[in-house]
Amino acid sequence: MHGKVYLVGAGPGDPELLTLRALYLLQHADAVVYDRLVSRAIMSCINPEATLYDVGKVAACKPSMQDDINDILLSLSRTHQRVIRLKGGDPFIFGRGGEEQLYLQQHGVRAEVVPGITAATGCAASLGIPLTHRGLASSVRFITGHLRDNQGLELNWASLSDPTCTLVFYMAMANCRHIAQALIQHGRSPHTPIALAQDATLKSQRWGLGTLQTLPQLAQTFSPPALLIIGQVVQLHPDYPQPTSNTQDALTPESSWALM
Amino acid sequence: MHGKVYLVGAGPGDPELLTLRALYLLQHADAVVYDRLVSRAIMSCINPEATLYDVGKVAACKPSMQDDINDILLSLSRTHQRVIRLKGGDPFIFGRGGEEQLYLQQHGVRAEVVPGITAATGCAASLGIPLTHRGLASSVRFITGHLRDNQGLELNWASLSDPTCTLVFYMAMANCRHIAQALIQHGRSPHTPIALAQDATLKSQRWGLGTLQTLPQLAQTFSPPALLIIGQVVQLHPDYPQPTSNTQDALTPESSWALM
Ligand SMILES: C[S@@+](CC[C@H](N)C(=O)[O-])C[C@H]1O[C@@H](n2cnc3c(N)ncnc32)[C@H](O)[C@@H]1O
Ligand SMILES: C[S@@+](CC[C@H](N)C(=O)[O-])C[C@H]1O[C@@H](n2cnc3c(N)ncnc32)[C@H](O)[C@@H]1O
Repeated sequence: MHGKVYLVGAGPGDPELLTLRALYLLQHADAVVYDRLVSRAIMSCINPEATLYDVGKVAACKPSMQDDINDILLSLSRTHQRVIRLKGGDPFIFGRGGEEQLYLQQHGVRAEVVPGITAATGCAASLGIPLTHRGLASSVRFITGHLRDNQGLELNWASLSDPTCTLVFYMAMANCRHIAQALIQHGRSPHTPIALAQDATLKSQRWGLGTLQTLPQLAQTFSPPALLIIGQVVQLHPDYPQPTSNTQDALTPESSWALM
Repeated sequence: MHGKVYLVGAGPGDPELLTLRALYLLQHADAVVYDRLVSRAIMSCINPEATLYDVGKVAACKPSMQDDINDILLSLSRTHQRVIRLKGGDPFIFGRGGEEQLYLQQHGVRAEVVPGITAATGCAASLGIPLTHRGLASSVRFITGHLRDNQGLELNWASLSDPTCTLVFYMAMANCRHIAQALIQHGRSPHTPIALAQDATLKSQRWGLGTLQTLPQLAQTFSPPALLIIGQVVQLHPDYPQPTSNTQDALTPESSWALM
């Protein structure tokens, strides 16, 4: 009888945002394969007897290294009962959880997925920006701002122009200028409010407010992991200036971000 | 000095999907204002000394009753130190968290938002359907299938036709036929895979698989709270039939749902 692999979401970083199920599994793990994005505070919850595998750096270098991670999970499932694949956020939102689940299935290994707080909802709660709101946004879309294998960012921009849909871009820091230009070109107002948040929910959290127009400049002061929220809901942030025509673009990189 | 109000996400139902922060706050609450959607198992975590307010039925009757909830929160904040507003899923995803936060802010009451596992990620993990997946979906959109004040469901359907975007409809059970028709009319293939899940993550969970074409029939056997997932990623469910032209619509309501 082989072991079981748990694809576990660790949430956005704050260990208090772990689920009870994730904490229990970490405390009772036999082996843990973890990512760059998992915070140190969360790592300290792991059963001290568990074997640890850091695949963070490997995964960062080449997307093809996903094959190596799959192999590690498979062979650990043959030697350990309870194998945890620990991922930042939620395993099924830009987490490659689907690829790992499929591989394990194809090799007859039992897998269970434990959802986690995804960066978008962690970040939204931390900043106080609702992702949907009566009259402002009746939907929210999570999008990757970086396609794999360094393909260009060829999104269906027309479908992103609906002003009633909040957009949350993951992995977008390198492409903020391109995203702002394309959205404006496809009909989003240059005054559409935006927020950036880096290390959301962690003590090192930084955030900034602006508009699509000021985004490229503001983004220069942020580095990954960071999230980009676009839409009218961003106005609900208590620090967002009231939308009069003069102040709409008054936010500058210098004035608009702050340590929490 | 007034109390503080915590807008807390309880997740989709399974108490093990509470965050550590939510559990701590429930155990140390002075007053808890809760929804219909919060499961009994989660209610049993609440400090037995806390005053409880059930606003579930109230909220179900009339959207305008949100004003009453706001008032309850405000007056509780004057008599209790730690007031918890407990909500299903995440407070900022179709949870009216933004409205409550705004009202409290305007009345000078401190508020903190604690994110929760939203129904979409809870449901996706439970069924084993990734919401994004390399080559199948580079984005995911959460949409309300029911607009407030019983306005018709006038969505920007053209923006929903992008086949690389997974769609997750909340509160859509009454409008499944309309949603299927409109999506097909706007260019989504009638063979697009869909999944329905009711009471996701709870013992009473039921789910079903089909296509946009079979959705209206399948939906008749589901009742709220249920979620509708639409997109190629649904094929990754282990029970989804291989996509050959003959079997694509072979799923019927009878064969396609099961008790977990
Ligand atoms: C490979 S994706 C993984 C997403 C993860 N599975 C989730 O559900 O949050 C990594 C991206 O998530 C976002 N992210 C993750 N944690 C974050 C945090 N604490 N603050 C801001 N963004 C974060 C960033 O956009 C980062 O580039
Ligand atoms: C008013 S919305 C609240 C959503 C919540 N704030 C969240 O983030 O999940 C209620 C809808 O959420 C969905 N939902 C909530 N819990 C669910 C569950 N356990 N299974 C399936 N759908 C659920 C259903 O579509 C339901 O009609």
